[in-house]
Amino acid sequence: MAGSGRIHHRGLARKVVPAEEAAGHIRHGDTVGMSGFTGAGYPKAVPQALARRISDVHAAGDPFRVNVWTGASTAPELDGALAAADGIELRLPYQSDPVSRDKINRGLMEYIDVHLSHVAQMAWEGFLGPLDVAVVEVSGITTDGGLVPSSSVGNNKTWLDRADRVVLEVNSWQSPALDGMHDVYYGTALPPARRPIQLTRPDERIGVPYLRCPEDKVVAVVETDSPDRNSGFAAPDDASRAIAGHVVEFLEHEVARGRVPPELLPLQSGVGNVANAVLAGLGSSSFEGLTAYTEVIQDGMLDLLGTGRMVSASATAFSLSHEGMTRFDAEAQILRERILLRPQEISNHPEVIRRLGVLAMNGLIEADVYGNVNSTHVMGSRIQNGIGGSGDFARNAYISFFTTPSTAKGGAISTIVPMVSHVDHTEHDVAVIVTEQGLADLRGLPPRRRAELLIERCAHPDYRPLLRDYYERALRESPGRHTPHLLAEALSWHTRYLAEGSMLPAG
Amino acid sequence: MAGSGRIHHRGLARKVVPAEEAAGHIRHGDTVGMSGFTGAGYPKAVPQALARRISDVHAAGDPFRVNVWTGASTAPELDGALAAADGIELRLPYQSDPVSRDKINRGLMEYIDVHLSHVAQMAWEGFLGPLDVAVVEVSGITTDGGLVPSSSVGNNKTWLDRADRVVLEVNSWQSPALDGMHDVYYGTALPPARRPIQLTRPDERIGVPYLRCPEDKVVAVVETDSPDRNSGFAAPDDASRAIAGHVVEFLEHEVARGRVPPELLPLQSGVGNVANAVLAGLGSSSFEGLTAYTEVIQDGMLDLLGTGRMVSASATAFSLSHEGMTRFDAEAQILRERILLRPQEISNHPEVIRRLGVLAMNGLIEADVYGNVNSTHVMGSRIQNGIGGSGDFARNAYISFFTTPSTAKGGAISTIVPMVSHVDHTEHDVAVIVTEQGLADLRGLPPRRRAELLIERCAHPDYRPLLRDYYERALRESPGRHTPHLLAEALSWHTRYLAEGSMLPAG
Repeated sequence: MAGSGRIHHRGLARKVVPAEEAAGHIRHGDTVGMSGFTGAGYPKAVPQALARRISDVHAAGDPFRVNVWTGASTAPELDGALAAADGIELRLPYQSDPVSRDKINRGLMEYIDVHLSHVAQMAWEGFLGPLDVAVVEVSGITTDGGLVPSSSVGNNKTWLDRADRVVLEVNSWQSPALDGMHDVYYGTALPPARRPIQLTRPDERIGVPYLRCPEDKVVAVVETDSPDRNSGFAAPDDASRAIAGHVVEFLEHEVARGRVPPELLPLQSGVGNVANAVLAGLGSSSFEGLTAYTEVIQDGMLDLLGTGRMVSASATAFSLSHEGMTRFDAEAQILRERILLRPQEISNHPEVIRRLGVLAMNGLIEADVYGNVNSTHVMGSRIQNGIGGSGDFARNAYISFFTTPSTAKGGAISTIVPMVSHVDHTEHDVAVIVTEQGLADLRGLPPRRRAELLIERCAHPDYRPLLRDYYERALRESPGRHTPHLLAEALSWHTRYLAEGSMLPAG
Repeated sequence: MAGSGRIHHRGLARKVVPAEEAAGHIRHGDTVGMSGFTGAGYPKAVPQALARRISDVHAAGDPFRVNVWTGASTAPELDGALAAADGIELRLPYQSDPVSRDKINRGLMEYIDVHLSHVAQMAWEGFLGPLDVAVVEVSGITTDGGLVPSSSVGNNKTWLDRADRVVLEVNSWQSPALDGMHDVYYGTALPPARRPIQLTRPDERIGVPYLRCPEDKVVAVVETDSPDRNSGFAAPDDASRAIAGHVVEFLEHEVARGRVPPELLPLQSGVGNVANAVLAGLGSSSFEGLTAYTEVIQDGMLDLLGTGRMVSASATAFSLSHEGMTRFDAEAQILRERILLRPQEISNHPEVIRRLGVLAMNGLIEADVYGNVNSTHVMGSRIQNGIGGSGDFARNAYISFFTTPSTAKGGAISTIVPMVSHVDHTEHDVAVIVTEQGLADLRGLPPRRRAELLIERCAHPDYRPLLRDYYERALRESPGRHTPHLLAEALSWHTRYLAEGSMLPAG
């Protein structure tokens, strides 16, 4: 057993080295699959050691860049450090790091934005090229070499299976209670060998608790004792509380109409302030016996699980604040019975999401009056984070909600626009849009009725007359009246914002 | 047994009435679920009788409109007649009738464009309202009341299950060989009662050959002897043959690289000239043991099945020309062993498409340089047909192809544009784009490299310099360089076409 007491396999314990030495196994031009999902379970030491080495090599005038694949977003120690060192040639499938985002939007770094359920399949399919190295954080290693996953599972199974060389970070900061909370499914395959995924409830186990990796592929083991990102938790603001209120009222209405069972259907909830507010709203509602089939367990969901109002949650990662982490530690023995973490190819699998009938709730950057949603691009060209799992869930959900405050940038941006500047979710996949102004149930409505409802229910009063004016003129002048548009001014709100700093006309 | 010899159930034989009397069961305001998918298996007599009655009622100054749900497109006898009589209030989920399209685009008829796999679920979920009447064509009725489906299955199971009243059309024109070719799955449910669909090969049976319906719900049976639409078959033109050549060469390359098995993976192929040309191209290739998991069996696929180059095909409908129909009749005994028709909720189910690893090939109206695809709207506002099943297949495919000639309207329209005027398939779901100019394999490429490849490989030479000019200026001037765009002119090709009749600048 090595220093941390977390490595119980003798062969792997002998491979413990400093992070600098482990980073030496990564070469210029390599593709590196790293762990990490929403700031949880990412390697903390090796990426920083790699970034230092890259800087040294660059200082000597030589090139050194790698392709970085992960589960989803990581943290400054990984994306931030490597991007700052100009060490990333290509990044996929999701990022949210400011340094990285800036490089991507200046055209200095390549980024492929991928549905999170598609990543493992793409890696196996082969067109992305080989995976040279995996750098995966685990929370322990059993006596027979089983890898106890960390606070996220993400694509770790695939990285360990596909990589030529494996570097493990064993992080003793991670809660020992994680041991046994994972369900790693080893039944995936390439077609035509694929079989049904026999999962019918969020709390069902179909796999094993540990990741596996042939000992001889492990080139280095690094011990760490470092916290996850655990960013601060902001209490819900008025807009978020109003959005939550509309969602809860709508769900109560659906239950009353017999269209959704009293315990609802498994919830999927994106990350952030609005999502936490909706979960808090459910926490003070009359719903009981809730479940979740989602990507991340965040603070709001931990609260529901702690009180027992939510009886089980399946995800691929935690994404907790400092306070959430403290709560998890204090209540770990209860919570570990109610939470399962799975690979993201299962947490986000269309097959399972459709079968379970998930109620999906995701944020957006902007929606247009017909209900097309932009989740990724600011003003059509600047990537914000990425589509993440929102497409996996929205397309296959029983009801697909998108939530947003009706304005951004202090009112200079309307999140309801005539035409979105980029589309990630088409009108076909967007059922309900909610702002603090109200909720528009777009299900079963043709385009013109969608527009009328969205403008009246969701747009901010400052922008509502402008949207009405656009829509009414389009209704008269558009060459087609199925989805009336005036193409010459459909994107004028965006160009006005870019030129004048506001979507509102001057004066 | 009634006149046609196709009704072997005594109770139902006693319900035979003229179409006019059967149409009398449909009332103003009713929602009517009709059979029909790509011009096959739609009711021929009752919709026309209904259209006549609607015209009479309108002539008397009274209102009479119904909501019409189908599988997909039908024919003049259904959509054409009812639209011409101004009898349709709302239509879903797909149409391709010129009269109907004109009414929709003039704002005189409501249309909801739905993923074909979503329709049955939406009907069961309840928010569309009740289904009053089902009008379903069958090809026969067994002694114990089993309904032998016709040349399409579509949503018939759901309509028969959900409707209050059922009208059957028994069409003796349909081939007796259809009996036994269907696989109707009765295992669907609403969540949380949904279970895995245990289908792992296109030729596997998971259901029963006949539809069922309680006898007391059947209010009328009508006998017909009328052909399906069976539109003419155009021999592939040069552009279609060139597209087919690129697709076949690409598939050979993928097989050579070991990324696709030698017998390929199950094919999905849209309808039309290009799709038939691709199938013809496969017919003269070296591929053997092909399979299909698709929506429709069209002429090109019948050829592959007839020669044995394709060993099995699963679909929800036929869509044959006169010649194709003649061939089917002549070779029915062989073909019926190689073809299965299923409900469209199974033929198009994300779960099954993803599992089988379908190679999906669909047409498009336009694609932009980043690979976003518009399948439905001409110049952003006029609906053409609908998204159909293209989204079900493109999102879940192993490789998603979109094919199109590089220009339309005699060169006045480029099908590769700076920004599409409507999005049905986002960059995340589009893997390969093919025109007669060439093939762009966009897999694993970030946006700028997608744009460069698409412009060079797929755009028509008349438009290539204009696209390069847009893209290069966007690269310099766009506020973000992840997906460079100049929003003020992104849709200018469309506005120029609307104003001047061509996307090419004058002079």
